[in-house]
Amino acid sequence: MSSAPKANAVVGQSGGPTGVINASLVGVIEEANKHPEIQNLYGAVHAVAGMVKDDFIDLKKLSADTLELVAASPSSAIGTSRDKPDEEYCARILEVFKKRNIRYFFYIGGNDSANTAYIINTMAAAADYELRAFHIPKTVDNDLLVTDHCPGFGTAAKFVACALMGDDLDNRAMPGIKIDCVMGRHAGFLTAASALGRQRDDDGPHLVYIPERPVSMDKFLGDVEGVYKKLGRCVVAVSEGICDTDGVTWAEKLAEVKETDSHGNVQLSGTGALADFLAGQVKSNLDAKRVRADTFGYLQRSFAGLQSCVDAREARACGQAAVKFAMDEVSGSVAIKRTGNGKDYAVELFRTELGNVAEKTKSMPAEFINAEGNGVTDAFIEYAMPLTGGLPRTSYLGNYPRI
Amino acid sequence: MSSAPKANAVVGQSGGPTGVINASLVGVIEEANKHPEIQNLYGAVHAVAGMVKDDFIDLKKLSADTLELVAASPSSAIGTSRDKPDEEYCARILEVFKKRNIRYFFYIGGNDSANTAYIINTMAAAADYELRAFHIPKTVDNDLLVTDHCPGFGTAAKFVACALMGDDLDNRAMPGIKIDCVMGRHAGFLTAASALGRQRDDDGPHLVYIPERPVSMDKFLGDVEGVYKKLGRCVVAVSEGICDTDGVTWAEKLAEVKETDSHGNVQLSGTGALADFLAGQVKSNLDAKRVRADTFGYLQRSFAGLQSCVDAREARACGQAAVKFAMDEVSGSVAIKRTGNGKDYAVELFRTELGNVAEKTKSMPAEFINAEGNGVTDAFIEYAMPLTGGLPRTSYLGNYPRI
Repeated sequence: MSSAPKANAVVGQSGGPTGVINASLVGVIEEANKHPEIQNLYGAVHAVAGMVKDDFIDLKKLSADTLELVAASPSSAIGTSRDKPDEEYCARILEVFKKRNIRYFFYIGGNDSANTAYIINTMAAAADYELRAFHIPKTVDNDLLVTDHCPGFGTAAKFVACALMGDDLDNRAMPGIKIDCVMGRHAGFLTAASALGRQRDDDGPHLVYIPERPVSMDKFLGDVEGVYKKLGRCVVAVSEGICDTDGVTWAEKLAEVKETDSHGNVQLSGTGALADFLAGQVKSNLDAKRVRADTFGYLQRSFAGLQSCVDAREARACGQAAVKFAMDEVSGSVAIKRTGNGKDYAVELFRTELGNVAEKTKSMPAEFINAEGNGVTDAFIEYAMPLTGGLPRTSYLGNYPRI
Repeated sequence: MSSAPKANAVVGQSGGPTGVINASLVGVIEEANKHPEIQNLYGAVHAVAGMVKDDFIDLKKLSADTLELVAASPSSAIGTSRDKPDEEYCARILEVFKKRNIRYFFYIGGNDSANTAYIINTMAAAADYELRAFHIPKTVDNDLLVTDHCPGFGTAAKFVACALMGDDLDNRAMPGIKIDCVMGRHAGFLTAASALGRQRDDDGPHLVYIPERPVSMDKFLGDVEGVYKKLGRCVVAVSEGICDTDGVTWAEKLAEVKETDSHGNVQLSGTGALADFLAGQVKSNLDAKRVRADTFGYLQRSFAGLQSCVDAREARACGQAAVKFAMDEVSGSVAIKRTGNGKDYAVELFRTELGNVAEKTKSMPAEFINAEGNGVTDAFIEYAMPLTGGLPRTSYLGNYPRI
């Protein structure tokens, strides 16, 4: 292992914003400031799009106050991109790196971002250009391999849990059938988080549908009817990535115009179509008075002032860890290991190979999903609760004894 | 004026839930506990529906801890109703009041609820039955007359402002056109609150459309295009009650099935149809890459753990004031007078006649709306900001000087 080069560094934020991706950015900045090996720290404006265009800001000149404000702000403070760089794109990035003597590359994002770091690192090695490339995990979907959980998930989980806590109380006060559509294209973690705030036996969500468990319309309607008959109301959390039993997502089936991004994904967020479709099916097929649907949309990834303190702390630590690892290693992805749970919740950070994370997706493990495939288990609650940093408690009086 | 009777009291929560309607309930309970004139305090389960069915819980036996938990919980803790009582319905309620020796009636709600209190009080007087009827204001729409502002608005305004702060940062990070649909059937206050979190000159929302200012599709599209050409992005807040220039709401125009409630209102919330329709119009008519729409739905009235401290305090004080007023007066509605603003924000509570509030609706005054009819003025910000209890600050680095 050669010693860490004295050179410039670049950091970028990729893919969908989260509530704590800026905390990771600040972690990179404050740790980079401690290492004289890192001379300039460039912020790539709009991620790879900024790298390829040579569009950078100077991140070493920010005041401590600004850094704290950035760390507490949702969304990606230096802009993001959904560009998926091919080899030619990466080659152009490498040219910019060479021109600016950038030899540290920190990339905060999901599995696509890990892959970008992997490709650029491989190309640099082939060109005999010394480059240290590190991926810092980020995703509200919580779907990265190796790491116990992903920065960004805890804050989004807190939002979804608080939303369902309030919405369930709203549904108690004004009973009916309520369908809430939650982000998560392939992994059900965030939709499952809707159950974290349940405090009473009959608290909703009463049904939780995730992409890992395909469900037919008949089964869905039967489940809803069953709860509605029993409780006189029903609150349902549905992942935007929910699939029919033939494996095709319902969103794809109902999309009149399939708008796709550069990764070939159908647009799921930023529309209420799926939730309205499901509400329409319930209205048409069940004898229920009041059927409503909400789609949480971008609020669940970018709401101001609602960070999970645990998530924010860990996101920042992951940014710091990437810089520390880069002093000793040539590449890697930062991962979280849980060393204690419940009251003793604690984590350690470690390095894993980029190839272990790149382009791979984690699903909800079977032990987190109930046998019927329409709810979560206590094991999931135990796993996810600490990541929210704690949830508010609530009270409902309508089921108190009558006088 | 006869002295306050020694008798029982009833309290109910009516109409759409809010984030602080339970604080008003707790205000009634704790003040009632101080007055020996009030013997039992009955909570009407599901508002007038509980009163007419003789369905009550005992609110005098709740512990202090439970009361604090209730006060902090969103939604209506004893259930609510959208029933609009006619004379016959009110006559049946009066029979239940007589049977239970209920001579204090506290009703937390909007202008319909004030009217219900008014009708029942008038009927009681005609029947020579001593009854003291008080209305406690509540609405996220902020559309009641006489009072400076309504409990429930500040908390919903905080939610909408934080949502737009995050969503605007999201839109900066990943530019495009974003449309956010906000509650408010007739009054634009809550949609206008979307502008409260703006901190930088080019922060969104860049356009705000409210029911008070009808707008044609051409004007709407022209406005959006203008901002998009200038900034490369555009964030729009639209009230669910937005009207075309012929005075018909866009929601009504596009509704295939016009589901109406017992007040004859078309369903506006609990569907993403309006936002999706507007996004579709933008996609079809403008040359823009990324067009998304979110509908905030029930989250803006029932989100757990996000009260405005000012709103919660005032809501509670309004509940207390109703009971105090009932010791000296036979009827009334509690209203808020602002006695200081900005840093010196302060209020006093006073009593107004039920008839001044019943069935009347306040709109956004002209001085709160910009000349173009697509934004808010500084006067609105000064009016509404204190009610949120303060908003988080954020930072965005993407427009920093390039290196």
